[in-house]
Amino acid sequence: MKSDKISEAVVRRLPVYLRYLQELYKREVTTVSSQELGLRLDLNPAQIRKDLAYFGDFGRKGIGYDVAYLIDKIRQILKLDQQINVALVGAGNLGHALSNYNRYVKDNMKIVAVFDSQPSKIGSNINTLTVQPMEELVKTVKDLNIRIGIITVPDSEAQRVADYLVEAGVEAILNFAPIIIKAPAHIRIHTADFTTDLLSLAYYLENEAGKEEEEDVK
Amino acid sequence: MKSDKISEAVVRRLPVYLRYLQELYKREVTTVSSQELGLRLDLNPAQIRKDLAYFGDFGRKGIGYDVAYLIDKIRQILKLDQQINVALVGAGNLGHALSNYNRYVKDNMKIVAVFDSQPSKIGSNINTLTVQPMEELVKTVKDLNIRIGIITVPDSEAQRVADYLVEAGVEAILNFAPIIIKAPAHIRIHTADFTTDLLSLAYYLENEAGKEEEEDVK
Repeated sequence: MKSDKISEAVVRRLPVYLRYLQELYKREVTTVSSQELGLRLDLNPAQIRKDLAYFGDFGRKGIGYDVAYLIDKIRQILKLDQQINVALVGAGNLGHALSNYNRYVKDNMKIVAVFDSQPSKIGSNINTLTVQPMEELVKTVKDLNIRIGIITVPDSEAQRVADYLVEAGVEAILNFAPIIIKAPAHIRIHTADFTTDLLSLAYYLENEAGKEEEEDVK
Repeated sequence: MKSDKISEAVVRRLPVYLRYLQELYKREVTTVSSQELGLRLDLNPAQIRKDLAYFGDFGRKGIGYDVAYLIDKIRQILKLDQQINVALVGAGNLGHALSNYNRYVKDNMKIVAVFDSQPSKIGSNINTLTVQPMEELVKTVKDLNIRIGIITVPDSEAQRVADYLVEAGVEAILNFAPIIIKAPAHIRIHTADFTTDLLSLAYYLENEAGKEEEEDVK
């Protein structure tokens, strides 16, 4: 199967499955049904079966999925069976929060370097990492074989940082700045915009005035 | 149209459309085609047309969508035509980062209170808000008509905070803790898990060893 035929929506659900399967594995649960996964992850079981069927025939009727096997398969599909090094650019509050990622995630993906342009931040420590100046980005990306960059700088700096990351040779960027970043077509960019999550919640609120929903939505 | 028939995926894309349309509006662009939207937002134009058609017949063939009209419609659909107050629980790095949300978002949704259980944080200021003790949560939620809670506490505290928010009367929760939170069925919960964004990026990396992709994915 050609990987570029699989929609981004499916690819984005795979880590969600992986996370919960790893939780089951820790609890020594050996099999799980799509119904159970659906209930737990608030997804349609048919959708889950369809997602996983993209990659092969994993489930067995009446039994479900083998947890350990499915973890291996998803890790392989997501290419997490190799070590992937990540650089974080922006040592502000969000950068600090994200750097905790290393602490609780056991995947082969790791933040191995942190950068900032502010002199006051350079040299300070975030968890076990020392904040480096931007001038060291290109060399560090090469030396540590960094393949993904995370951008947590103010939006006015985000495009410049992205250009710099691309120049340094990263293949993918996770952007937390609330702007749309431009990059060459071979660079994969995901935007992590929590405002999207927040605003979409409003849809599920009851209308204050009561039963006007039907009319409002029309 | 019954709102509960619309899939979450569609609802989650609406704020993405809204954000970009607002940007166009600021630049005094009056119409936009689904092709243009798709190109800019990295989405399939047919998907965009389908999403918007759920709510009504907004577009005109050969002209596209009226930007101002579509902004109004999406805001109405998302119920952002009313003021929605939000409480943030957890005044750590992530809480600080999220509280900046108020600064750049012009929507009717606003973080109006911040809470933490740590005595060292209570009374400190985050932007214009003073961190309150958890004991004041119930009263403040009622007084300020807070309808959404954001959880940015450590995962060991997240479920307890969620229970507390539900008890206080919020209708929806945005959870940043890397755990799955349980709540009564009438409470809408979204989990904002940046690790999902990050891990899914790995899928789009080239295989290190070169052309093994076809075999690996199989």
